[in-house]
Amino acid sequence: MVQVAVMGYGVVGSGVVEVMSEHRDSINKRTKEEMGIKYILDIRDFPDSPFQDKFTKNFEDILNDDEVKVVAEVMGGVHPAYEFTKQCLEKGKSVVTSNKELVATKGAELLKIAKQNNANYLFEASVGGGIPIIRPLSQCLAANEVIEIAGILNGTTNFILTKMIREKMSFADALAMAQQLGYAERNPAADVEGHDAGRKISILASLAYGKHVYPEYVHTQGITEITLEDVAYAASWGGVIKLIGQVKRLEDQTLDITVEPMFVEKNSQLANVDDVFNGIMVRGDSTGDVVFYGKGAGKLPTASAVVADIMDCAKHLKRRKYLEWADGDGSIVKPYAETTYPVYIRVACEDKQAAFQKAQELFANVSALVRANAGGNELAFVTDEMTVARQEKAVQALEEAGYQVLSKIRISDL
Amino acid sequence: MVQVAVMGYGVVGSGVVEVMSEHRDSINKRTKEEMGIKYILDIRDFPDSPFQDKFTKNFEDILNDDEVKVVAEVMGGVHPAYEFTKQCLEKGKSVVTSNKELVATKGAELLKIAKQNNANYLFEASVGGGIPIIRPLSQCLAANEVIEIAGILNGTTNFILTKMIREKMSFADALAMAQQLGYAERNPAADVEGHDAGRKISILASLAYGKHVYPEYVHTQGITEITLEDVAYAASWGGVIKLIGQVKRLEDQTLDITVEPMFVEKNSQLANVDDVFNGIMVRGDSTGDVVFYGKGAGKLPTASAVVADIMDCAKHLKRRKYLEWADGDGSIVKPYAETTYPVYIRVACEDKQAAFQKAQELFANVSALVRANAGGNELAFVTDEMTVARQEKAVQALEEAGYQVLSKIRISDL
Repeated sequence: MVQVAVMGYGVVGSGVVEVMSEHRDSINKRTKEEMGIKYILDIRDFPDSPFQDKFTKNFEDILNDDEVKVVAEVMGGVHPAYEFTKQCLEKGKSVVTSNKELVATKGAELLKIAKQNNANYLFEASVGGGIPIIRPLSQCLAANEVIEIAGILNGTTNFILTKMIREKMSFADALAMAQQLGYAERNPAADVEGHDAGRKISILASLAYGKHVYPEYVHTQGITEITLEDVAYAASWGGVIKLIGQVKRLEDQTLDITVEPMFVEKNSQLANVDDVFNGIMVRGDSTGDVVFYGKGAGKLPTASAVVADIMDCAKHLKRRKYLEWADGDGSIVKPYAETTYPVYIRVACEDKQAAFQKAQELFANVSALVRANAGGNELAFVTDEMTVARQEKAVQALEEAGYQVLSKIRISDL
Repeated sequence: MVQVAVMGYGVVGSGVVEVMSEHRDSINKRTKEEMGIKYILDIRDFPDSPFQDKFTKNFEDILNDDEVKVVAEVMGGVHPAYEFTKQCLEKGKSVVTSNKELVATKGAELLKIAKQNNANYLFEASVGGGIPIIRPLSQCLAANEVIEIAGILNGTTNFILTKMIREKMSFADALAMAQQLGYAERNPAADVEGHDAGRKISILASLAYGKHVYPEYVHTQGITEITLEDVAYAASWGGVIKLIGQVKRLEDQTLDITVEPMFVEKNSQLANVDDVFNGIMVRGDSTGDVVFYGKGAGKLPTASAVVADIMDCAKHLKRRKYLEWADGDGSIVKPYAETTYPVYIRVACEDKQAAFQKAQELFANVSALVRANAGGNELAFVTDEMTVARQEKAVQALEEAGYQVLSKIRISDL
């Protein structure tokens, strides 16, 4: 009998209990162990729950019960999830989680503690919800050098952008709709400002490159400033705007790692990932591009990934799994100002021709974009590849020459 | 030191040796073992190979060398790969393979022998080349009931169909081009007649449903009879023709498992998998649809999947991995005549209106399709869902009424 404790009875936690109950027979058969949930930790009361006898408000119940071998931490947030996880691992209990914030900020340390105590710390559900990505990246693609990972890692922002692209809805209206449908939270900052995607690319990069890349080293920009004009120009350029989390190893062995909106060509595999779906492309030196696609969030997809990790721990009690990376200090990350890419810029102007000449002068080689009903008082153009530092210098010069810069969006090579 | 033997120095075998040599340091680091190739088995001579000292023509060298812990069987075909694999497993050596034919025909037996000898038999590379699918299906989606798997599992036929759809090339011309580019073999039967895809869906079904579904129980049909007229009608219906390997669990718990060309709606995730790429959709009861996409064949992608399995074996010496399924006798498979789907039919006729009325009479409810330049002497239509038995009865009646049936293609619900 392998006893499990579930910490947190929110959306994911209740899903974990549901999946484990409903698939009980097949789970026991596959793990070749009788699996049971002994505790559910939550500070709230759930008087109508059929799992009444399992609830506790006292973490010590779980920590001090030697029968509990596997703990699912699905509370979210860093505190007290971090302290609870650490204590469980120190007692030799394996911990699985969907908590991307905790993995992104404390992953290296918790993996080390797990190793020292011959326990496992697994987090398949922390990226891509029910889409398998952590395990394929660490196991199936183990014989590859990962050249690049790029993904649509946040379903909420992808839903909003899809509405803006397909239905010409404004950002504000699309966000309101996402909130109404339960895709976005009342305070949507973590999603729309890119932090959620930032944590996820930070986890993927740490795994792929073996050093912890903390979220504070990831240049992170959200979608709050994207306008329908930008969407229209992206279409005329031949693509769509997507919020892309991306990491690639540069020739000097540093990492270009960012979360930001990007122009993505229409025929790219990621351009067609719409609505709340996630898509993650892993470019290996041997496999070429492999793409994983599915629902990146939601109660049951995420819960099923957590339960798969629970099963894996139950099969590997007192045996170490593969996951591991060293601590990192950000020195592996290329400073954002030194990264290089072509950029789309939109400026307000009175004389389009004069503005174009000024842009040409400042950015060397630019191509103008057109959109329907643009009027004469704006200019949109695309530059050649250049460093962000140089872009910013030119943008400043444009503004000093009296042209207000309305938008500036990276052009991806995806 | 974990010594490895590679059996077969063809495309995949030479790729395995290449990947292991070129990624030597990172492989050793990740497996925490020194890995080395001790033997390469091939009946041919390779006088120019830098691995001269490793070649042997004698299988016994490998079998009787206790230092060899992991064997990569990349010979292809059932004999002598089967005998060699069996003997290695019986000696407690783990075996990894890309040999879909062997896994599809002998998988249950070899997995059992592996288990009895505390060794592993892994075959990530047998389906989808470098796309991770076996491990995600058995591990990451372990907490799901698999409702359906559907995939474009053969790159050669997908390339041919893509040329037919995009460039209006005939089947014969597209095949010739595939052969010229090295995508199709001189004898293309295994690809174009669907057997390769049949082996792959047989492996996926065995894994997902826990019982060996041998290829002879899989209704298998290739693409040799697809014409440009069918391609045009598929477009007018709103989709494309793809060779789909599919298995779904029906309400009565039997499996509808087939490989056949199908009409696939344009907005389906699989409709946009083009050229030599593979795409595999797994529908889980908790995750919903998860799609895996990438190059399904080729030297390095396939080799990298083999090497990942070698690494996994090296990390699990004398420890059992998860893969396992019971033997099966086909009783789990729904007889093809009893499967149910809507179908597209094209007939030769002199009087289109009369032909339509006859079709209406025989198939109950049909919708005619149109295509440019069709002329008056053919009719194409789509029926409602009905059993294959009923379809065939109606087809026979159509023919008896003097209408030659030119095409009959399944309409998918993908």
